[in-house]
Order: sequence, then structure tokens, then C-alpha cells
Amino acid sequence: MADYTFGSVVTLAFDDAVDWQARLFRAAGMNDEDARLSGHHLVVADARGVYSHGIMRTPTYIEKITEGGIDPAARPEVVRGKGPTVLVDGHNAMGQVAAQFATDRAIELAKEFGSSTVSVTGSNHLGTAAYWVEQAAAADMVGFCWTINGNNIMAPWGGIDARLGNNPFGISAPCLTRPAVTLDMATSVAARGKIAMAMRTGSPIPEDWAYDKDGHPTTDAEAGFHGTVQPSGGYKGYGLTFMNAIVSALLNGSAFGDDIGDFFENPTQVQNTGHLLQFIDIDAIDDAEQFKTRMDAAVAYLKESPRRDEVEEIFVPGEIEARKYESQLAAGIEYPTEVIDELIALGDSLGVAAPTSTNQGAHR
Amino acid sequence: MADYTFGSVVTLAFDDAVDWQARLFRAAGMNDEDARLSGHHLVVADARGVYSHGIMRTPTYIEKITEGGIDPAARPEVVRGKGPTVLVDGHNAMGQVAAQFATDRAIELAKEFGSSTVSVTGSNHLGTAAYWVEQAAAADMVGFCWTINGNNIMAPWGGIDARLGNNPFGISAPCLTRPAVTLDMATSVAARGKIAMAMRTGSPIPEDWAYDKDGHPTTDAEAGFHGTVQPSGGYKGYGLTFMNAIVSALLNGSAFGDDIGDFFENPTQVQNTGHLLQFIDIDAIDDAEQFKTRMDAAVAYLKESPRRDEVEEIFVPGEIEARKYESQLAAGIEYPTEVIDELIALGDSLGVAAPTSTNQGAHR
Repeated sequence: MADYTFGSVVTLAFDDAVDWQARLFRAAGMNDEDARLSGHHLVVADARGVYSHGIMRTPTYIEKITEGGIDPAARPEVVRGKGPTVLVDGHNAMGQVAAQFATDRAIELAKEFGSSTVSVTGSNHLGTAAYWVEQAAAADMVGFCWTINGNNIMAPWGGIDARLGNNPFGISAPCLTRPAVTLDMATSVAARGKIAMAMRTGSPIPEDWAYDKDGHPTTDAEAGFHGTVQPSGGYKGYGLTFMNAIVSALLNGSAFGDDIGDFFENPTQVQNTGHLLQFIDIDAIDDAEQFKTRMDAAVAYLKESPRRDEVEEIFVPGEIEARKYESQLAAGIEYPTEVIDELIALGDSLGVAAPTSTNQGAHR
Repeated sequence: MADYTFGSVVTLAFDDAVDWQARLFRAAGMNDEDARLSGHHLVVADARGVYSHGIMRTPTYIEKITEGGIDPAARPEVVRGKGPTVLVDGHNAMGQVAAQFATDRAIELAKEFGSSTVSVTGSNHLGTAAYWVEQAAAADMVGFCWTINGNNIMAPWGGIDARLGNNPFGISAPCLTRPAVTLDMATSVAARGKIAMAMRTGSPIPEDWAYDKDGHPTTDAEAGFHGTVQPSGGYKGYGLTFMNAIVSALLNGSAFGDDIGDFFENPTQVQNTGHLLQFIDIDAIDDAEQFKTRMDAAVAYLKESPRRDEVEEIFVPGEIEARKYESQLAAGIEYPTEVIDELIALGDSLGVAAPTSTNQGAHR
């Protein structure tokens, strides 16, 4: 559950934001379809309030494309397979392009075989897992997405050396009258970006966010930044992140450990990221309408639980994000001025004009 | 990672323990194969050091069989399916019997289709998830097992009413020269049994184990026992346990929420537990030998990480249990005398003799 406080903001209409990002990606060498997909993916994350995975990452993606770390013209393809079980080679495409190709295959194959297993290699950071598994839910399927994260920031339990990512995964299932229930979680307590933010502002961090270089919990953001992130749930989160790496990356020979390129710091390095999608067509197991009716009832049952005194509402996974998405889709997406300014400057260097609505910000 | 300290102990040879439990289950009405499977499952858990899921549960299982909560003669069957995706109805068999039937189907189907999805309804508590997913690993597959837990002990995040189990799941993958890497975790910080144990001994509990009736963290074991367990990783564990309930139980219409029978407290009530198995035949994605070679290297890489000063060895998921299993398979399994005494008394009531090795305990 993301929480952000912005200073000055610029509000962009959803479609304007997608169009702008698509033009940036096209200018960097992607075809129209891939550019629109990449832009849409990032803007959806922003609209859901998951700004850490939104257009603030566009400059990093475009730098990787420009410097050779990502191939904007790559076409993913199925390179091995057996019925509903296939291996996709992304050929170093944008992670979103490889993941969309894999998602389309996963839906097709699950329709034919009742379920599907799509393993992806030769990919890059796929953005939010939610975006892919919610396509399963929209097709009356239950979707699982596992992925290795391109940065080693977590130590094995008892260790002090960063040898694992906080590998995220997503699971989604549709309801009848409510938004899909979607869990999209990383396996650390807090994102490393939050620790970096605290370091920049000189704030202390909660003692369960990070370990220092010697493996001891620390409230000093700088010590935590130079140490490792704490796994969510202690050794359970460590176990889960390693299993995620196994099923997403080791399964198909994608990069693991020292072979993983840092997403942010080395734009020329090919990442060779791996993912795993597992989709289940609900109708193969039970009537999808009946399932979705049960989902509505289960969500209501949890939301109607008596609450702690200070709690106003109980949420199910993905509900806060879905509500934010609906509201920002209608009213426009609020962006921090700094993020917009950086993208305007990037656009200037690529000959891409910003939407006129960026002029409304306090900074102009 | 289980930790137990026993008072007086009785050591049983692995085979003697299995044979004894099998005879108890046969006396309760199961056929020879099902009885041996049930006994083997429980003794393997003990040998791995996971005593909470071992033969200390035999009296509860047998009471459920005797009182009508479990049908010892039920034959699970495939009732719906499409290629590698099937629904199994356990017809209220022992959870282990339904899960073994499902596991056999999952392996067969994954061999044929590269991967398989087996949803199970009409089942009971399936014991440890590890037992099922390790059969996948032994067949050169990666296995996932999701299951709802038959007791509501966790509140939705922000709530105070127990409306969810600490639903466990397991994932396993094989290595070349090492034991399979196996994560088997419940979604609470601590098992409720540990809170019950602390209440009995009058000990305080760590403040991250339980909430009291008002939803506040408590170190008072009795207040925690009458409250709810804390999810592992806070709201992430809550999200994970609900997703687990969705994919294992809601998917196929098994019991959820108020419909779930308590495993321990109502022996006449049919549980209607649901499970989900997802197996992937490694050879469908990449050569299994190469995968297992990568697994060996990945495990070594994590174990070789520099450690915190006080840590002697880094473990991967399931490694402590695998080591314990090897040692207790060779030297016999150490049981608390109370557990053995209860089973001897149960055997007396069923006309089942205890192994002669139970005579070696300090209690005779």
C-alpha cells in the first residue's frame, strides 16, 4: 500500500500521459505498438498510486534503450514448448514487451488447455506484476506472475552480503461486481527506494526496514542503504524471494546472483531477466460466474469484519489501488513537478513535445 | 524453522513408527495403502523435525474418522477437467489420501503436457505441503501446493475478527547433488500451537506473534490465544493468506470463512478443504540436468555469503529439515514421551500394539 506526499503537483489526463510516454518511447526507437504498451503500463501504475513503478522510470528505461541495455526492436518468440507449457525468449526486449507477449500466450494457452505455464528468459524489468495478472482476471482466469528483480539488495538469512533481489510476485482473481483482487508484493519489508529517500532527507528509518553492513537492524538510513533490505516476515521472506528466483530465473537459465545487471546503474548491461506466468481458466475448474459470485461474498465477508478502533475501513489486496485508479482515470493523475520536469527535459533532447496540460503546473 | 525442546524422549525407528501409525489407521477403518500413506506422511514430518504436523496429530485424525468427520473409505476422483487442468473431489477422504491422488495426477499430467494444474475439493487437512511438492522435485519437476487451513485464526488487516486461516503453501525444486530446496510456510508469524503452549506454561510471547481481542499486539499468551495471530510481514501476509484461500478453496467452491470446520474442535464436522497443485516438468522448459546444476550453484552461492558474527551457517529453505530427516532416518526419531503415551493408550482402545521400541522410554 503506497503512500506518497507530493510538494507541487502537475495533473495530467490519463490519455495525455500515455500518449506522451508513447511518443518518448517511439523517439527512442520502439515501434508504435510497443511504445504505447510501455507508456500505458507505466501510466497505469501511476494511476493506481504505485508511482515507484510509473513514468518516473521512463528516463531509466530510455537510457537503457539508448545505451544498448535494452533492444527496442526485439521481437519475443516461443523457443521451446509442450502443449500449454512454453518458454519465451524476449531477445532483450523491453520487459513490458516480453511480458505482454507472454501474457497473450498464457491467455491463449489457458483457454485451450484450462491452464498455462509460460516461462520467460532474455527479458528486462517487467514493471508491476499486477498489470499482467490483472489481464488474467479480466479474461476470467486466475493469474500468477513471478519475477526476479534485477538488483541484489537482500542477504540470505543470517548473511550480510546482498545476493538476492526483493523479488516480487503477483496473484489476481476476478470478482463479479467489484474490481479484481490483486496481490502485488515485493519480498522485502520496504522498497529500497524508500530507504534512499530517507537518506536524502536525513530522516531515520523504521528498525525493520534495513540491516547495516554487519547484518544488524538499523534506523540510520545511510547505514541501511549501504547494507541490505530486511525480508518481509524475516526468514520466510528470504525463503520466498529465493523460491521466486528459482521459478522465474533459474528454471530457464536467466541471470541470477552476480550475473544480474543492476537496473538503475549500468545502462549498457543486458539484464537477462526471467519471469514465470501461470494462468488458470476458471471455467476449467468451475463455472466462472459462480466463482466470481463467491469472490464478491468473500470480499464482503472480510470487509465486514469488526475493526480496530482507529481503522475506518478494511481493504482486500489491490482495492486501494483500484479505487485510486478509478479516481485518477476520471480526474487526471497527480504527478510531482520534479518528475514532469525531468520528462520535459528528456523530451526536449529527443524532440518530443510535452502535453499542453503540463503547463498548468506551479513551475511554469 | 522448527525448534522443540523435549523432556523425556522415546526413540523410534522410522519404519517402526510408520508401521505403528499405519496399523492405527487401519484399525480406524482405512485400507492398507491409505493407512500406510497417512502414517508415512506423519512420520516423515516428525523425521524432518516438523513435529507439529506429525504423529501427535494421529489421535485427532482418528477421532475425526471415528466420529464421521473424515470418511476412511472414500475414493477421490477426477470430476471435471480439460487436458492438464483437472478438478479432484476428495469425497471427504483423509486429506493425505486426496492429496496423494492429486499429486499422482499432477505428475502424470505434467509429464504429458509439460505442466499441470490440479484443484482439489472435498478434502481435509493435507498435513505438510512439503510432502507433496517434494514428490514433484523427485520427478524433476517444480511443484507448488496451496491450501486453505481449516481454522480461522487471523483477522483481515485492520480487523479484529478471525476470518482467515494462516493458510500455508509449499514450493519445491530439485538440486543435482543436494536435497531439494523446499519452502513450506504458513502465513502467520508463529503457529497458534506455540501461543497455546506459552499459555499453558504461563510464559509471555514475543510481541509480533498475536493480537488481543481489540487488535493490539500483546505479549500475554492468553490474550493472544483469545485474539488472532499476526500475519507474517503484516499486511503482506494478510494478502497472501487471502490469495491462498482464493486459489485453493474459493476457486472450486470448497469451504471458506464461517463454513470452515475447525480441525481440532469438531470431530463430526466435514471440513470440505480445498487445495491447488501446480507442477512444472523442468524438461519442458530446459534440460533438467542443467537446471539442477544451476540449483547446486545457486545454493552454494547463498551458503557462501559472508555471515553475521553470531551465525555459523546459512541455510536454504528446507535444508534444516532435510538434514534432520537424514539423521533421524538413520538414528531413529526422538519423540516426547507424552506423545508416545497418548498413542499407546489410543492403540489400547483400538487393539493395536505399540512397537516394542516404545518400551525403551524412561516412562516404562
